[in-house]
Amino acid sequence: MSRKRFDNFNCSIAKSLNQVGDWWTLLIVREAFFGVSSFSGFQKNLGIAKNILTDRLDKLVADEVFEKDICADDSRRYEYALTDKGRALFPVLVALMQWGDKWSGGEPPVNLRDKKTGKKIQKLKVMSKDGAPLKMDDVTVSPGSGADMSIHTRLKPK
Amino acid sequence: MSRKRFDNFNCSIAKSLNQVGDWWTLLIVREAFFGVSSFSGFQKNLGIAKNILTDRLDKLVADEVFEKDICADDSRRYEYALTDKGRALFPVLVALMQWGDKWSGGEPPVNLRDKKTGKKIQKLKVMSKDGAPLKMDDVTVSPGSGADMSIHTRLKPK
Repeated sequence: MSRKRFDNFNCSIAKSLNQVGDWWTLLIVREAFFGVSSFSGFQKNLGIAKNILTDRLDKLVADEVFEKDICADDSRRYEYALTDKGRALFPVLVALMQWGDKWSGGEPPVNLRDKKTGKKIQKLKVMSKDGAPLKMDDVTVSPGSGADMSIHTRLKPK
Repeated sequence: MSRKRFDNFNCSIAKSLNQVGDWWTLLIVREAFFGVSSFSGFQKNLGIAKNILTDRLDKLVADEVFEKDICADDSRRYEYALTDKGRALFPVLVALMQWGDKWSGGEPPVNLRDKKTGKKIQKLKVMSKDGAPLKMDDVTVSPGSGADMSIHTRLKPK
């Protein structure tokens, strides 16, 4: 499957899925959030084949989600750290986790807590400018500054 | 690729990816958010092969993300509507869209607006109980009520 299959979509969701839409990718990001930084750590925790992990990590480094450096403790090894772009995936992880907690059956396997207070974090909410929670039906779409003709045509008021 | 490959992970992110981790799935949900409800509508807007679309829609119906009903206007056709579980994916879509807007280069193709006011929605923020914004580094993980032994072992204080 081509990795850039969605490049012709004028859509930020598609662009994001190009970079993190692979089955393993967000789980690798999750592991990094859990503090894993070594190839062997990702491999052990995810039970992923080495060649697939190599491929996914190379792609994540190329997409600047991770940076790869020689390990400070052992110059024969590499370590992988999330970049600012990678850390910015946090709301995506939290949104997927909270959806799974609610809709996949069973109780939450983990809780996310504010380090300072130990209290559980809030449920993510899409909010209006003035802080009112918005559901899907409360939101509409308009062409953005990067819209192409297809978006303008599609979103033209009828 | 088995569709249930992540079922053995005690993790809500993995469970979510089992249901929406396919490259096409979230784009189909996006189309539904844009108002598309027919097979031909999804097909035209996504340029997806019919057999793949059939497969993905069947799976989404089986996972109760969509419900499939005979079309009110034409009893020879079906229409697909998001369920409550499907609509609850909205924060996932918004998180992916906002990440793509910021980190994929270029200007935003679309803006999401509050239907009532026409104003752009806020950027999604992970927040503490008392409303403070939290970044990835501000958050820690503890075993939840659904944690198995592997989670307890892994998250045991060192």
